[in-house]
Parts: sequence; structure tokens; C-alpha cells
Amino acid sequence: MTDPEVAALDAADPLAHFRDAFELPEGLIYLDGNSLGPLPKATRVRLSEVVAGEWGRSLIRGWNDHDWIGAPRRVGAKLAPLIGAESDEVICADSTSANIYKLAVAAMQARPGRAMVLSEPGDFPTDLYMLEGAVRTLGEGRRLELREASEIEAALSPDVALLVLCHAHYKTARIRDMVRLTAAAQAVGALVLWDLSHSAGVLDVDLNGANADLAVGCGYKYLNGGPGAPAFLFVARRHQADLVSPLSGWMGHAAPFDFPDAYAPAEGIGRFACGTPPILGLAALECGVELTARAGKSALRAKAGLLTDLFIRRVEAGPAGGELALATPRETAERGGHVSWRHPDAFAIIQAMIARGVIGDFRAPDIARFGFSPMPLSFAETARAADILGEVVSTRAYDDPRYRQRSAVT
Amino acid sequence: MTDPEVAALDAADPLAHFRDAFELPEGLIYLDGNSLGPLPKATRVRLSEVVAGEWGRSLIRGWNDHDWIGAPRRVGAKLAPLIGAESDEVICADSTSANIYKLAVAAMQARPGRAMVLSEPGDFPTDLYMLEGAVRTLGEGRRLELREASEIEAALSPDVALLVLCHAHYKTARIRDMVRLTAAAQAVGALVLWDLSHSAGVLDVDLNGANADLAVGCGYKYLNGGPGAPAFLFVARRHQADLVSPLSGWMGHAAPFDFPDAYAPAEGIGRFACGTPPILGLAALECGVELTARAGKSALRAKAGLLTDLFIRRVEAGPAGGELALATPRETAERGGHVSWRHPDAFAIIQAMIARGVIGDFRAPDIARFGFSPMPLSFAETARAADILGEVVSTRAYDDPRYRQRSAVT
Repeated sequence: MTDPEVAALDAADPLAHFRDAFELPEGLIYLDGNSLGPLPKATRVRLSEVVAGEWGRSLIRGWNDHDWIGAPRRVGAKLAPLIGAESDEVICADSTSANIYKLAVAAMQARPGRAMVLSEPGDFPTDLYMLEGAVRTLGEGRRLELREASEIEAALSPDVALLVLCHAHYKTARIRDMVRLTAAAQAVGALVLWDLSHSAGVLDVDLNGANADLAVGCGYKYLNGGPGAPAFLFVARRHQADLVSPLSGWMGHAAPFDFPDAYAPAEGIGRFACGTPPILGLAALECGVELTARAGKSALRAKAGLLTDLFIRRVEAGPAGGELALATPRETAERGGHVSWRHPDAFAIIQAMIARGVIGDFRAPDIARFGFSPMPLSFAETARAADILGEVVSTRAYDDPRYRQRSAVT
Repeated sequence: MTDPEVAALDAADPLAHFRDAFELPEGLIYLDGNSLGPLPKATRVRLSEVVAGEWGRSLIRGWNDHDWIGAPRRVGAKLAPLIGAESDEVICADSTSANIYKLAVAAMQARPGRAMVLSEPGDFPTDLYMLEGAVRTLGEGRRLELREASEIEAALSPDVALLVLCHAHYKTARIRDMVRLTAAAQAVGALVLWDLSHSAGVLDVDLNGANADLAVGCGYKYLNGGPGAPAFLFVARRHQADLVSPLSGWMGHAAPFDFPDAYAPAEGIGRFACGTPPILGLAALECGVELTARAGKSALRAKAGLLTDLFIRRVEAGPAGGELALATPRETAERGGHVSWRHPDAFAIIQAMIARGVIGDFRAPDIARFGFSPMPLSFAETARAADILGEVVSTRAYDDPRYRQRSAVT
């Protein structure tokens, strides 16, 4: 029962061959690549080399012989084209959370006399928590203020040191206008920090095209870097000399292996590294980033738009169309790589979908979220997932005690 | 040419069978387990399972189904007996550097009105750099003061918020008196943060026996967690409710998966987590910690003492005895798991040793350092390494341009 529209989309898909680059269980439709990207086949091979060949045989010599020491900057340089950055503007290190703290503190210290960090309520929680921590550490009257999306521009004032926003919203997938908001914040003398966690590897991010100042993002979502992969951090070249990381660890030192007592930041992006680089995590991330960069951000963005368009159209035209409220912008250009529906039984719906071989995820309190990672997914799977969602909701198949049991991570 | 003393030591070694738990290249004498522990065989198998079986097949479900989410606390609990802590006092997360920052800022905030952080010049550089960063972020007249080891106690005053010391010194292996220094600092109302990087997994560390407040340490040295492994962090139970991490990320939140906008720290040690846990790194660390915990801290400490005793005795009695100056305490009880010698040509000596199959390392400006990780090493290898060192130095075999080329990591 091939659907001609769907078959045509798959036939015309320039990224179709990337499916074979991933290991995915047979028959599973994985719509959670925006939360944890699937395993690239190359990663499995590479990690085995790094563990047995490099760590096992080279031991401490691996830092030089296999350039472990260069991994944070090397992987950052490979990631740069996916986000519109230069190769010396990106480094892979620590977690997204820690990177937000580094850049928020550095930005506030570079804008003395300005007390406010501005962000949006409902943005990804760890971003807000880290900003709370940064403001609390710096003290001296500094504060975090949260304003609804529509009020951000009005809240920009000469008291704002830093504006922090998620580029694509983790629940709604709504895309923020990076060009306009960056310019508006810069017009009052503030810096802007973009969280690209839900856009790097799926959208046509162009940091330098937007004259962006700072950015961070996650390695384990659309970049397919593995569970808890190292995160990344971008500092525009023009700001690198003026910002100093509060997490001034030895890996960001100008001469770490001279072991001097006093800190002196490295030139350039390297100063934003902190502790010893996590080699296993970086090796996996490097494979994921290489693969994603091969697909290219324009093709990824185009396919993400088509996949999410198809999914929305099919669900709304299906038997549950009236029961699910689209929480995601209807306009393709305003939407990231995932689609969210509001429903009071969203949790149980997601569990019922999982039982039927379609993995999405639940976001409190009422969001059923489905991610469309462009490389591993086909249009046929997307249409099939829409059919299953329609069936689960319209038949109330989710209304079963099995589907209401919560676990640690939901 | 079996040496009877050495053969007797090996025959009586209760940890001898642990050698077989590691993958080590044939013929290599690896005396750098204090910098990067060798690969446990179990780690190779386990990582392959985590990558192919857990990430590859469970995908996002791994957080629950394989308890990835519990890894930071689970590995911390396994590590606890090696450092004299309770299982709910240790967590594995981030880097040693980041953990120093978390605890230093939290401690200073818990001791308002005290301006000083006290440490020792020449302690491991990243410790000092992170303290610089912590003091700079907190501002308000806070300062880092460095005093020579012999002057630390005299410098303790009611203005000291925090004393930070390395338990075993990374160059000299000198062990600090944890009981005495902790009591002295506490007597003036200060907290103490111990860096256990060069003692966890090789010494009989007893944090609670010393009434310690805070500690951090490295996962990739004697704990054999792999290159850039996650680090650990200890907070005595009595302090857990009063300290708040400045790196207040979602993984330290009381209810991370409710996704509220405001930060509320988790009860207990969990609040010192920050970003998404690095699962590959934690899986490797867990194998290393399990193995080390099986050996037990008393047996590890005893063998480290015997290995270093033997090495010092043999080198000093050998042909280079007069040319190498022992930089490590002669008294076994005052010495950690490594032995350092000063020599103006220490760099070239280490390179010449490596060319002869003995891996040690150089620490600027003039230290040749040899680590004696108790599980993988035999007494025979130790005696053989002493012979080779004696030969390299006494014949000036190191005096060769090949041995003077520096690389990125030295």
C-alpha cells in the first residue's frame, strides 16, 4: 500500500542514503533523534579503535600520537560549517549547562555596570538554572529577568548585559529570529547568547550571517554524538580576546604543560576549554559531527521542513486531527525539526506509541513531541507514524494503566 | 637472572592476579598509571555493550532501561569505599577542574565575611587556576593566597573561608597530613577541600576518618577510567544541605523532568551534578572503579609502598644513584604512588626510557616521574625499570638529539 506522494518524496530525497549510516533496530520508527540521536555505524567502529587501539596500546602517548589533545578544537572546527561559524570560533567541551555558565559570566564581566540578564520563561530549564547560578555567583545586584517571547524586545535596555535565548524551542520547535533579535540586543549594547541545542544539525543556522556574539549547543541530539556527548561553544572572533572564562582550567591556559601557578588564558577559542578533554565522548561526537556535516545544513534543513510538513498534514487529516492541538508553528520556516501536540493524555499517548514501535517523547505537562532527524528518517516512516498516532488517539488505545506508569526520565 | 628478593615480593603479592585484568602491550613497562591508567579488559567489553547494545538498541530508553540516569551516583557509591566516604557522599561528574570550582564557590558562599582562599604554590596548576576563577567571579574583595607547605598552618585565620590542598603532590608525591590540616582549618572556622587526584585508588584515603569537608579527584589516573574520564566530588553529609553549586544545572535539580523555570537543588549529593551525564565516559569509569574497589585501598596502599620502596632503593644503589636527586619523600608513609627524580636532563631521560620500553613522564622543569599503579605492575618490572634508568643515566644514553624533541603534551 505505497502512498504515491510519500513514495515520491522518498525517491527524491537527496539524504536517503544516510539511513544506512545508522544502526537502528529493525521495524522501529525513531522520532526522538532530537533528544538522543541514533548510533552511527562509524561510531561503533571508531570507539572500538579508540579504546583498544589508542588507549589500550598507546596509553599516555595517545595525547600526542593520536592528537587527543587537539580533539576539542578539531571537532569544533568540523562542526563550524553546520552553524555558520569559522573553524576557530567553535570548541567542543563540557556540557551545554557548563558552557552557558562560562559564557554568561564572561559576558556579564565584559559588560560591567549592566545588571540584567534577560531570557524567556519556559526556555530549556537548564539554561535558566545556569543563568540563576551565574547571577548568584556574580552578585552585586545582578539579576535574571524572564519576559515572554513577545516582550523581549521591549525589555531590552541599557541595563541588559546579556540576552539568552533558545534558537529552536525544545517544546514548540518555534524558531527565534536570530538576525532581528541579535541586532536589537546589540543596539542597546548587550551581547546575545544563543542555545542551538535543538537547531544544530537540523536547521540552516548562520551565526556569522546574523552577526551573532555567543552560542552553545548540545552534541547528543541532531549531531548524533551519543548519550551525554560533550557540548559545543561558539565565541565570535571579535569577542575572543575580551572574554575570560570563569572556569579557567588548565586546558584553557596559554601554556598548560609549563605548569605555572598563575592562570593566563590561551589566545582565541581555546581559552574556553576547562578540564582534561573527555576522549571517548569526543571520539563519538566527532563521528556524529562528520556524518552530519557531510549531509550539510541546507539539505538537512530542507528535509526537516518536508518531514514535519508531512507529519502535521497527515495527523491533522487523520482520525485524531480534531483531538490533538498543534503546539508547533504551522509555517515551515518558523519551525525546527520536531512537532509537538498538546493533549491532556500526552504521557499515555507516547507510551502507547512506544508499545507500537514509534518512539517520541513526553514533555510536561501535556506535550507529545516527535523529532524528525533528517538523516536516519524516511518519509514512509513519517507517514506511518502519523497513521499510528491517529489510531492510538482516535481509538483511545492510550487509555490503559500500563501507559500511565512514570519512570525516572520521562 | 631472577633476583630472589624481587621474586619473593612477586610471589607474596596479593594483587598479582590483577595484572591479567588489564590490556597492556607485551614487553612494555608502564610507569604512568598515575597519569593515565591502563585499559581494563572489562572496559573494552563493557563499552562495546554500551555503544552497540544500549545506545544502538535502546536509544533514548537507555536513560531508564539501563539506568544511565543513575550512573553519576552509582559510580560515586562504588568509589566511596576507596576514599573513606559513605555511598551518598560521592558523585561522578564533570572534570576535576569544574568540581573544584563548584565546591570552592559553594564553600565561599557558605562562609560569608571571609575573604581568603588559601592554597599552596606549586600545587596542581588547574586547582590554582580554578580558585583564581572562583575568586574572580565572586569578587567583593575575595582573594586567593598561596603559602608554602610549611607556612599553611600559620596562615590559617578567621579570614580564611577555604583551604584547598592536594593530598598527594603531583610532582613530589608528598602526602599531606589530612587529619591535622583538616582540624587546623576547621579550628578557625574554615572548610577544607582536598584534591585526591594522585591518591584515590593508590592510598588508604579516609575522608570521614579525617572529618573531611570536601574533596574532588580524577577518574583517569589510578582509577583507570580512561582518557579524560569524568571526575568525582565528595561533600560530607553534614554539609550537603548548606552548599549550593554555582553550576546549578538541571541534573542537580530536585525535579529535573518536571521542567520548572526556577532552580531548586536536589537533596543530598545529587545537587552537585550539572549537565547531562557523559554515559560513555561513566561506563568506562565504572569498570575502572569496580576493579580498583575489588583490590581494596589497604592492599593497594601496601603494594604502592613496597613498589616505590624497591624502585628508590634500586635506583640509588645502581650506577646513577649519585646523579639523580630524589624529589619524593624517603619515608614510605609520607609518599604516594609515584617517585620523582630531579635531573637537569629529565626530559631527555624520560624519552630515552620510552625508547627502551619504560614509560614514565616529565614534569617541568626537571622532574622525571614514575608512577607505580599497584594493580597492573609487578616487582620484577619495577626492578627492571630501575636498572634501565640506571643505565640510561650512567651511560648518558639520553644525550641524543632524538630525545630532546618536545611535543604538544609533555
